[in-house]
Amino acid sequence: MTTSAPPGNRFERRRAATRQALVRAARQILAESGDTSVSIQAIAERADVGFGSFYNHFESKADLFDAAVTDALAEYGEAVDGHLSGLEDPAELVSAGVRLSAGMAESHPEIMEILRHRGLGQIHSARGLAPWALRDLERGVTSGRFVVDAPAVALSVLGGSLLGLLQLGCSRPDIDRDEAAQNMAEMLLHMLGVPRDEARDIARRPLPDIR
Amino acid sequence: MTTSAPPGNRFERRRAATRQALVRAARQILAESGDTSVSIQAIAERADVGFGSFYNHFESKADLFDAAVTDALAEYGEAVDGHLSGLEDPAELVSAGVRLSAGMAESHPEIMEILRHRGLGQIHSARGLAPWALRDLERGVTSGRFVVDAPAVALSVLGGSLLGLLQLGCSRPDIDRDEAAQNMAEMLLHMLGVPRDEARDIARRPLPDIR
Repeated sequence: MTTSAPPGNRFERRRAATRQALVRAARQILAESGDTSVSIQAIAERADVGFGSFYNHFESKADLFDAAVTDALAEYGEAVDGHLSGLEDPAELVSAGVRLSAGMAESHPEIMEILRHRGLGQIHSARGLAPWALRDLERGVTSGRFVVDAPAVALSVLGGSLLGLLQLGCSRPDIDRDEAAQNMAEMLLHMLGVPRDEARDIARRPLPDIR
Repeated sequence: MTTSAPPGNRFERRRAATRQALVRAARQILAESGDTSVSIQAIAERADVGFGSFYNHFESKADLFDAAVTDALAEYGEAVDGHLSGLEDPAELVSAGVRLSAGMAESHPEIMEILRHRGLGQIHSARGLAPWALRDLERGVTSGRFVVDAPAVALSVLGGSLLGLLQLGCSRPDIDRDEAAQNMAEMLLHMLGVPRDEARDIARRPLPDIR
């Protein structure tokens, strides 16, 4: 859960804690079912805050759920990006991004369930991993590492594929997720112009443990 | 809207018409917002059928919405497959499947909005386009046209990418959808092992108009 800097006084701290409790409850609901038909009353009870305080923080239920998706996406982006800091090669960055994201299905199940339920609408968003992925794609094109005519279309493939991989792990719980993620990273790198043998090698390099 | 064969007598015809009206209303709701929190009463009113008749056809609201997704997927699969009958090459089939699906955002907006809201859970489903796509992938591997280690992972990429493309058309309404679909088909064919020049050529061949 991302939090803003600690506010200055007791009133502000309590106010921030109430908002955070509502966002946390909304994240849990999104992860459990993606079904947002629950009442504001029920959300407030789950967050253990008074019903009346809801409207001090959010204009509507949709507003709260949007904030919850944003919050989860920011945490997702930070978790993955924090593990990519040593990498320079755009191909390694794309591969590690896919594989680390897949690994988060185990280490950060709530975030990944939220992505599975709400992620499609975020593929071209300015938040989450999309801006990083687009930056890596464009760097790879500039350096000649990637051959991509339409970065926005490539981003649609990367983001959609990642969601497809999360869904695969859910539809076929017996599948080896790490191996599936390596296969996917290899396929995507080859698609982006990396020779197949090199793509296979990069997709199987040791990664930092995100857990 | 898919329908079963015309039933034999007036009672059965009326019964089928009631079910179909409920499914049609559920499809509209799924396409409009994907928000299924609406009451059964409101769905029955929208379908112009009595509230009491709902439970003659469906056990629950979730049951109805599942039937609506199935109905839309079946129509989607038939619409695309009906245009692919002359094609034999798995590469042409995959390319045409992507491009025709993208074209359906205009010609069949309701189905494609349902896919955008509910399609991720259907990527590995036994309905819709997934079984066809998996069959084409496996044929391509057998004939040596494609190089794919894990067909289920490749299917995750194809299905996820298609959803990403639908979302791209929605997030960036100014984009040229046909051109984006051609770019995507080219990238995916290259990923599957088709040389890039040939992939580019196949992805730009004339297609039957699905409208």
